[in-house]
Amino acid sequence: MTGERIFLDHASGGPLLPAARAAMEEVLAGHGAAPGGGHREARESRKVLEHTRKQVAEFFGLGDPERIVFTSGGTEAAQSAIRGWGEGAGKGTLYVSEMEHPAVEAAVRRLGRGGFTVERIPVDAEGRLQWKNVKPGEGPGLVCVHLAHHDLGIVQDLKQAAVFAKSARAQLFVDATFGGGWVSLPAGLDGVDLVAISGHRLGAPKGSGPLFIRSGFPWRGQVEGGRQENDQRAGTENLPAIAGLGAALAEWRKSGEKFRKTAREAQRILLERIRKTVSNAKLHGPEPGPERSPSHLAMSFAGLEAEALALVLDRVGVAARGGSGCVTREMKIPPAMKAIGAKPEEARSLILFTLGVTAPIPDLSVAANLISEAVKRLASSLPEG
Amino acid sequence: MTGERIFLDHASGGPLLPAARAAMEEVLAGHGAAPGGGHREARESRKVLEHTRKQVAEFFGLGDPERIVFTSGGTEAAQSAIRGWGEGAGKGTLYVSEMEHPAVEAAVRRLGRGGFTVERIPVDAEGRLQWKNVKPGEGPGLVCVHLAHHDLGIVQDLKQAAVFAKSARAQLFVDATFGGGWVSLPAGLDGVDLVAISGHRLGAPKGSGPLFIRSGFPWRGQVEGGRQENDQRAGTENLPAIAGLGAALAEWRKSGEKFRKTAREAQRILLERIRKTVSNAKLHGPEPGPERSPSHLAMSFAGLEAEALALVLDRVGVAARGGSGCVTREMKIPPAMKAIGAKPEEARSLILFTLGVTAPIPDLSVAANLISEAVKRLASSLPEG
Repeated sequence: MTGERIFLDHASGGPLLPAARAAMEEVLAGHGAAPGGGHREARESRKVLEHTRKQVAEFFGLGDPERIVFTSGGTEAAQSAIRGWGEGAGKGTLYVSEMEHPAVEAAVRRLGRGGFTVERIPVDAEGRLQWKNVKPGEGPGLVCVHLAHHDLGIVQDLKQAAVFAKSARAQLFVDATFGGGWVSLPAGLDGVDLVAISGHRLGAPKGSGPLFIRSGFPWRGQVEGGRQENDQRAGTENLPAIAGLGAALAEWRKSGEKFRKTAREAQRILLERIRKTVSNAKLHGPEPGPERSPSHLAMSFAGLEAEALALVLDRVGVAARGGSGCVTREMKIPPAMKAIGAKPEEARSLILFTLGVTAPIPDLSVAANLISEAVKRLASSLPEG
Repeated sequence: MTGERIFLDHASGGPLLPAARAAMEEVLAGHGAAPGGGHREARESRKVLEHTRKQVAEFFGLGDPERIVFTSGGTEAAQSAIRGWGEGAGKGTLYVSEMEHPAVEAAVRRLGRGGFTVERIPVDAEGRLQWKNVKPGEGPGLVCVHLAHHDLGIVQDLKQAAVFAKSARAQLFVDATFGGGWVSLPAGLDGVDLVAISGHRLGAPKGSGPLFIRSGFPWRGQVEGGRQENDQRAGTENLPAIAGLGAALAEWRKSGEKFRKTAREAQRILLERIRKTVSNAKLHGPEPGPERSPSHLAMSFAGLEAEALALVLDRVGVAARGGSGCVTREMKIPPAMKAIGAKPEEARSLILFTLGVTAPIPDLSVAANLISEAVKRLASSLPEG
């Protein structure tokens, strides 16, 4: 048990980028005026708001900041994208896998109960969406794809998704709440109609979740009331979080390649060392490379229960997530593990190791040793099968 | 034109209470782990989350923190209260005035379009809800009442509202997004089933909006996905904002009476001086006293357009809100002014002066002089009618 903690659960939450924290604290120290008024203080706040909208547009490689809406986080952004499309369309088909994040799945089921058709996109053993097996329905339609998968780490092929969406005369929603920043989006969001980001997974503040909505199809805001955000999201703007988001995304534009490279290197070391020291460790989703988010390892340790292993890991000094990050409590098996056909004993032992913007590279061989120690401890504590 | 600004638009936004800022910054400096995991960092975050839930329950005088849900702000809290009740009930009657905040009105209209009956509660010339003129319908029902009115400043009689709700076998929702803290809620929220608060109007962070939901009737969360907040609000918890909210509400428990007394005194001085120096100034809603929020003055200056006057006020150094705080752009007349039967020239010239937790009492006679100056300037710039 070392004194130093090794934090490998950045997908759940992690520290702020220093630039984001500084931008936030500047707003927190100020007059706090809402951007919506006519007075000087409101104009100052409006300047911060519109500057951030421009920063988000630049992060997406977009010329038009008008299509960016600030929501309270990735869950709201993803839910609003889908439900807002549904209210705009009134009827139609949703194309979606069986392994989406619960925020997406819940919105899809809600529309399904409301009369929309839900077409499921099958996946292969690594989690790749199998477009050739999907039948385009009658329009209108919405194709829902994750950029990177929250449990498997797989990066989906957005070009194929866009080709399918076009053939189905459907809009394309990219759930980038996992993968945003870590994985490239198409330049200028070409072929994409809706994108949701979770700020805190990029070192931006909790409570920030930008949503991109292309013009040209009906979409309806899900939080109604005041006229904020061009009528697309009511409620007093959370300016401190918004300013922090802008600063974080500006940092990603500048240093994103460095962040990704650092994470890729850390991911490689960690995976190598775990494989070397833990005989029953198995990676799920693709090998590190273009098909895998550089911040993410999904590993099973067959024979061990994920939650128990996560607790022992915590005891030896490693913070990691046992089981799916966002699975419902009654499900012991993450839906993604079921979808890719993983063995039940693998599915039950899934651990997620996720890296942040400042991955602690020097610690990762220590981390692998601690992981090995935890696996041995837990295995030896179990009665023989 | 003095160098000092006099900020009288606290209902739209204002500075943080120092205790709230300190609590927020402590979380912002930390590891940022989400409260939902099994590791030490998650447990630390969970402790902050549950400590705040207790602080909010104490602010409400409640023993059971379980019924508190953290949303992203007053608008989400109010919308969720009503729409969540609607989804739980499936059908029924909404009892509501014609002058509610747009967040409430939008949720009511949404349920109205979905088949719910909407019974309008009439108001008198000061804005008092007239319960004797409302006919209780068949259950289920939801009575929607504001604690204090965002434009008129009137405090409603919650006892009467509770008696009516009981007679109609309806739940009672109190929209305390205006008035929370400034005006007492019933001890232990007696007779009340749902309460929404807007954190930032109490010197708590933007992005904080606690919602109280009594048990015993069906209610359904409006943001779905992960299992946060006992399944009542999905999405990674905005812990910095939540911690700041807890600190602010703890401050209100301790110093609320002082805040209210200070504001009441400031309100009295400001009103007196304006009346003395501006001949056409007229207060709308009740006179200062138990029927008026101590942080709020709604005044018309007949013959002048509210937005133009607010701009001139800004020029002379006073930040105030022209027209309704949250009215839709196409409405020149705030619905509340129509509901109380104000003359059109009064309704068009409504200015809101709202005080914050640290009301600048010494400046208020200066403020009144500046208001008088602005009124004269604008009046003299207009062509003779």
